[in-house]
Amino acid sequence: MKIAVDVLGGDFAPDEILLGVAIALKGGEFQAEELVLVGPEAKIRAAFAAQGITEVPQILHTEQVIEGHEKPIEGLRAKPQASVAVCVGAVKQGLAGGLVAFGNTGATVAAATMGLGLLSGVRRPGIGVSLTGESGRFVLLDVGANPSPKPLHLFQYALMGAAYARDLFGVKLPRIGLLNIGGESTKGTPLFKDTHKALTAAADGNMAFVGNVEGNQLFSGCADVFVSDGFVGNMVLKVVEGFAEYLVHAANATGAGEGFKATLRKKLGAADFSEVGAATLLGVNGVVLIGHGRSRASAVLPALRTARAEIRANVNHHIVESVAAHGAQTPTQEA
Amino acid sequence: MKIAVDVLGGDFAPDEILLGVAIALKGGEFQAEELVLVGPEAKIRAAFAAQGITEVPQILHTEQVIEGHEKPIEGLRAKPQASVAVCVGAVKQGLAGGLVAFGNTGATVAAATMGLGLLSGVRRPGIGVSLTGESGRFVLLDVGANPSPKPLHLFQYALMGAAYARDLFGVKLPRIGLLNIGGESTKGTPLFKDTHKALTAAADGNMAFVGNVEGNQLFSGCADVFVSDGFVGNMVLKVVEGFAEYLVHAANATGAGEGFKATLRKKLGAADFSEVGAATLLGVNGVVLIGHGRSRASAVLPALRTARAEIRANVNHHIVESVAAHGAQTPTQEA
Repeated sequence: MKIAVDVLGGDFAPDEILLGVAIALKGGEFQAEELVLVGPEAKIRAAFAAQGITEVPQILHTEQVIEGHEKPIEGLRAKPQASVAVCVGAVKQGLAGGLVAFGNTGATVAAATMGLGLLSGVRRPGIGVSLTGESGRFVLLDVGANPSPKPLHLFQYALMGAAYARDLFGVKLPRIGLLNIGGESTKGTPLFKDTHKALTAAADGNMAFVGNVEGNQLFSGCADVFVSDGFVGNMVLKVVEGFAEYLVHAANATGAGEGFKATLRKKLGAADFSEVGAATLLGVNGVVLIGHGRSRASAVLPALRTARAEIRANVNHHIVESVAAHGAQTPTQEA
Repeated sequence: MKIAVDVLGGDFAPDEILLGVAIALKGGEFQAEELVLVGPEAKIRAAFAAQGITEVPQILHTEQVIEGHEKPIEGLRAKPQASVAVCVGAVKQGLAGGLVAFGNTGATVAAATMGLGLLSGVRRPGIGVSLTGESGRFVLLDVGANPSPKPLHLFQYALMGAAYARDLFGVKLPRIGLLNIGGESTKGTPLFKDTHKALTAAADGNMAFVGNVEGNQLFSGCADVFVSDGFVGNMVLKVVEGFAEYLVHAANATGAGEGFKATLRKKLGAADFSEVGAATLLGVNGVVLIGHGRSRASAVLPALRTARAEIRANVNHHIVESVAAHGAQTPTQEA
């Protein structure tokens, strides 16, 4: 299955995105026939010619893009040929199995949710991001698609995260942690108490529930999947990002040695998208990778790798199976 | 005014707390008559004798303590002579102007709120923690006293934080940022929209409102006061703490040089309580410093310094003035 790449979305698009695609092709890890590029045809061809690439992937021409500051729904209505909408169309029509986009996150979520629909049984999509902690990779979700979820949604995020961890990290029995402000089952708002109850009942041979986990445990290796509401998840992800930047600045300002800076950068890399290139929109009927708007060329190859891994592992099929299997334990309150 | 010190609360109490007090006295920064120690008299006297300290502060003897795992209200009811309750009593009776406690946070908040009452006009106490970012110190509140606040509470947290930043950091016109998941005024839940509106109307010669700020701006130096609900604030603080620990472990595991580790520790110190020793409970009628349960001796002196600075600056008086002055702009919805 091909992967559609939105060449126009992102702060440094199209140049850095095209450079990233060129690197992926020249390195031999991806072949031209595996990709569909969505953007201005002449510019794309010129960029590849400049890189000495003769085998150019299929191009779906468009010049429209939803800018980062635009309101998602209004932008999508005003620009039916927006690059992200064309990418979604390519997946919907079966031309591609997934897409990678570095532009307006809200627009990508909206276009994918409306265009592809939700997976059977799934009630809300969630954005998962893969980070690295004491025991290797883990996934945190939701990081912003759903700031005010219901227990039903958090419960399904746990199932989706578990399927993701099994398929992408190779963890047989993913450990689920519910990100809360206290360890006991009675801690937090009713949302967390109800979700805790449902997850306790649902734990089986496919996933283990380690209970509530506090913020200081996120990088401790205690779980493979951390479930949070989209407000908290987004805040947590961005605070770590900002703190990492602060440390790098501080290291520079204090004239720390190059060795220090290199090690710091390597460790901090575990906290950004550098290993996976992008976050994953889970719950929609297609593989959707959402990169940081500030992504440079180096983010493209890892994002393509993650998209391919998700397509090959058939994560979405496993999510549908898990949601169906756990129907009886799913909290019912939707309102 | 004296400062009451809870000698029994905390994972390493009483030994580490007593050692910390001894360091503060032996260094000459604090005199015996400035402190009131609350805990087991014989043990306190023995610890000071072992340190060669002859001038022992006043002691209020008790052997009861609320353990970290105990439920605050039940613990306080069952143990009327709990060390934290005796500290609160010392402040209430005017024997001390403030207290420093490293034990059960919930019990300290409950004991102080019930025992001292709220400052005139203040509706809910909030826990503020002082951190260091690109432009120096800033305060983040609430970090856990009030996980489900109303706009009225967040509004008053902004006023309290501004008074704190003026008095403790010497910032004339504190910049207030509302920690949210998007920059525009329309972002977030109704809670954030209403608070944004109220703070916009309230900004004056005593405080500036910089609007919504996202997680990645927390360490950027864009504000002196970051206002959040207690759930998000607690999560953010603990995530940073855990991430810092992870980096230190990673540095150790990779055999990073001592220079690297020293610089890292120094920078990460900015993210914990090491400069201030403890968080501050704002809004109650007395100065209340709440240290981390895992505090060692080194946390005591900075906590005492902060308590003394708050007492001398009369932060609470300035909070009452500010709350009264901004009464007209205060959101009214309480329910």
